[in-house]
Amino acid sequence: MVATSVSSPIEKQIAQKTREQARQLAALTSVERSEAIEAIAQALEAAMPEILAANEADTQAAQAEGISPSLYARLKLGETKLKAAIAGVRDVAKLPDPLGTIQIHRELDQGLILKRVTCPLGVLGVIFEARPDALIQITSLAIKSGNGVILKGGKEAIRSCQTLVKVIHEALAKTQVSPDVVQLFTTREEIKALLELDEYVDLIIPRGSNAFVRYVQENTRIPVLGHADGICHLYVDRAADLDQAVKITVDAKTQYPAACNAIETLLVHQDIAASFLPKVESALQPLQVELRGDEKTRDYLDIPAATAEDWATEYSDLILSIKVVDSLTDAIAHINTYGSRHTEAIITKDPEAAQVFLHQVDAAGVYHNCSTRFADGFRYGFGAEVGISTQKMPPRGPVGLEGLVTYKYQMTGEGHIADTYSGANAKAFTHKDLFDPD
Amino acid sequence: MVATSVSSPIEKQIAQKTREQARQLAALTSVERSEAIEAIAQALEAAMPEILAANEADTQAAQAEGISPSLYARLKLGETKLKAAIAGVRDVAKLPDPLGTIQIHRELDQGLILKRVTCPLGVLGVIFEARPDALIQITSLAIKSGNGVILKGGKEAIRSCQTLVKVIHEALAKTQVSPDVVQLFTTREEIKALLELDEYVDLIIPRGSNAFVRYVQENTRIPVLGHADGICHLYVDRAADLDQAVKITVDAKTQYPAACNAIETLLVHQDIAASFLPKVESALQPLQVELRGDEKTRDYLDIPAATAEDWATEYSDLILSIKVVDSLTDAIAHINTYGSRHTEAIITKDPEAAQVFLHQVDAAGVYHNCSTRFADGFRYGFGAEVGISTQKMPPRGPVGLEGLVTYKYQMTGEGHIADTYSGANAKAFTHKDLFDPD
Repeated sequence: MVATSVSSPIEKQIAQKTREQARQLAALTSVERSEAIEAIAQALEAAMPEILAANEADTQAAQAEGISPSLYARLKLGETKLKAAIAGVRDVAKLPDPLGTIQIHRELDQGLILKRVTCPLGVLGVIFEARPDALIQITSLAIKSGNGVILKGGKEAIRSCQTLVKVIHEALAKTQVSPDVVQLFTTREEIKALLELDEYVDLIIPRGSNAFVRYVQENTRIPVLGHADGICHLYVDRAADLDQAVKITVDAKTQYPAACNAIETLLVHQDIAASFLPKVESALQPLQVELRGDEKTRDYLDIPAATAEDWATEYSDLILSIKVVDSLTDAIAHINTYGSRHTEAIITKDPEAAQVFLHQVDAAGVYHNCSTRFADGFRYGFGAEVGISTQKMPPRGPVGLEGLVTYKYQMTGEGHIADTYSGANAKAFTHKDLFDPD
Repeated sequence: MVATSVSSPIEKQIAQKTREQARQLAALTSVERSEAIEAIAQALEAAMPEILAANEADTQAAQAEGISPSLYARLKLGETKLKAAIAGVRDVAKLPDPLGTIQIHRELDQGLILKRVTCPLGVLGVIFEARPDALIQITSLAIKSGNGVILKGGKEAIRSCQTLVKVIHEALAKTQVSPDVVQLFTTREEIKALLELDEYVDLIIPRGSNAFVRYVQENTRIPVLGHADGICHLYVDRAADLDQAVKITVDAKTQYPAACNAIETLLVHQDIAASFLPKVESALQPLQVELRGDEKTRDYLDIPAATAEDWATEYSDLILSIKVVDSLTDAIAHINTYGSRHTEAIITKDPEAAQVFLHQVDAAGVYHNCSTRFADGFRYGFGAEVGISTQKMPPRGPVGLEGLVTYKYQMTGEGHIADTYSGANAKAFTHKDLFDPD
């Protein structure tokens, strides 16, 4: 809960204007929104030299301050990355329209018709890393879904972000979409202000470190889409194909160790520990993976001991903790205790064990005989990913455009009143689902 | 945010046990869950004398303390109400199974199959008024949806609740469902404890006063299903059928004024104010509705002035504030400023005005030519209502069993790894939606 208000009248005014203009955006047709997105793509193409120059200034300033190579790689735009981002804008325009979908179409009584129809959330607050291409993607997703957006990018990308938003504003000015639906906040203080604007902002999407996401979750009343931790497990069952298990372990740990869907802990059934553990060690050693094991694991491998802390740690690095478990039940209990409800996998040829695992493991993704690294909106075929949620309530797991819309109930009558359906002579509802051509 | 912990080890142990047993419940079949619900119905029937005696003790104690007639009416069970509640249990058993629904069934590549399947949330925390019949309904909905439930009823109903839970436990002991999935908290301190059990409780459903619901929303990290305010409006457009508008105003205000979907404010287009206002006044006056009006309204009616506070007040009583507006836009702006996003209605014969209203008003329910009083899960045909949400994110509006379930992504592969689909020679995903027999 936020005790003292830090949002100044200026930020409130901006958010209020964004919300007002977002209401107009919500009423536009799919074609009008797509035209605005295409206008952005064209304007970005025309302004490439200007954008790259601003980004060059950002990268030079960042280098002078000695930023890390990984931060530099994300910050640096370059012609190839910028062109790919512009192509991505056009890909978003081509996605199916998430708005106006009729989810329920029901006659309650003759002439009294209920529809549940998808509609935008309103205004999104997106806080992202120093990655200018993220700004481009987020903006096009927001307009596609009929939402206003308040953007706050990492401070190292400030010149890039300001130039991009200027170009986007100029492009939108020539369309049906008001430039005011896209706003840029640039200071750290404005993050605090943004988190307080629960009257005007409907969803916060924080990207960045686990600590930052947790900070956001704990300091706003606005719903938050995102996850703080990605502690994923791979359980190698006694009925596993061991070669397949080795291959999947290597992929899930090393293909991109910093990803949230990479595994942190390997659980191994005791019956196959003697044969599997040396196999997986030989596969991981050449890839510089540091192994840590529980007592039973260390009966087979000469590796350092894993402590209780290891089970609760997201390494995001080439480190893997290993635990030998007595049973499937034991593996599930460990995962339900230490997992972050992100993505969990079992390797087994036993279909019954797989079913128990898929049912009883409490996570957004439960996998059988494949790598946890598939947990991703693009890989799921959503066309875009706005975040991965580890909350239990939907939207859960990788979230596409669907996560940026809600629904409302629209009812039309012919003077119908509730009293007709109450009391002793109450008329019955028909509750007839109607065929829907949509 | 909760600063200091008040939940004792005992409450944590109870919640942990509920969660463990709820995991077993989640794995049961629809038939097994229905059998457990039927066992509860039979046990309640058999224990009717015992339940009614406990309720009699509650009502006598409450009367001795001088409770209000409305509280007494809710607390008093009686044979008719108890039989109706037991019939309701069997109705819940007959509802379509909300679990195991396949929402997405997609081939990502040959042999790599993704399914999105509905599953229980886990454990519900339900805090309700001194209404013993509510305990019966909530318990059957929880078991139907595969969730454990921690119940806390109003203190006046303590004997009734304890007896009901004892009977339910005895019934469940003979079924596949563990009695531990249904727990009763009885003290006020335990409410605080419940709100802190975010590790074990997945959804809080608070029922009761607006102030209480707001207290719950502001004092827990657990998602909350419910609404604090129900400030609903009826807008009578210049193209309204005035007789229809009068009839709907009377229904929406007086049919059940304490309901959250009753209207608090009537907005009247200036062009029809002179003819409509006297009409509606003559209809409301015999029903003892107190009217308050803005300046323009008072040009036509001799009623007290409405202040700015009136626009933001849920009277829950036979009081109606009236405002004359210049235009549809003006009406929408008033609603979007003062409405609680619950249910809003327009009366008009102009289809274009209706469309603008339905699109631009930001509320869970937007109605045309019918009473706001239809906003209700039973009336919508959901078979049951677990709450009405005024949050923007789904579930929004009246929520049935659908609000007690979530989904997980289940993926099965044949050794698939992400590396195959990355880098220079990346294989393409097929992303083929599969026909689903479900």
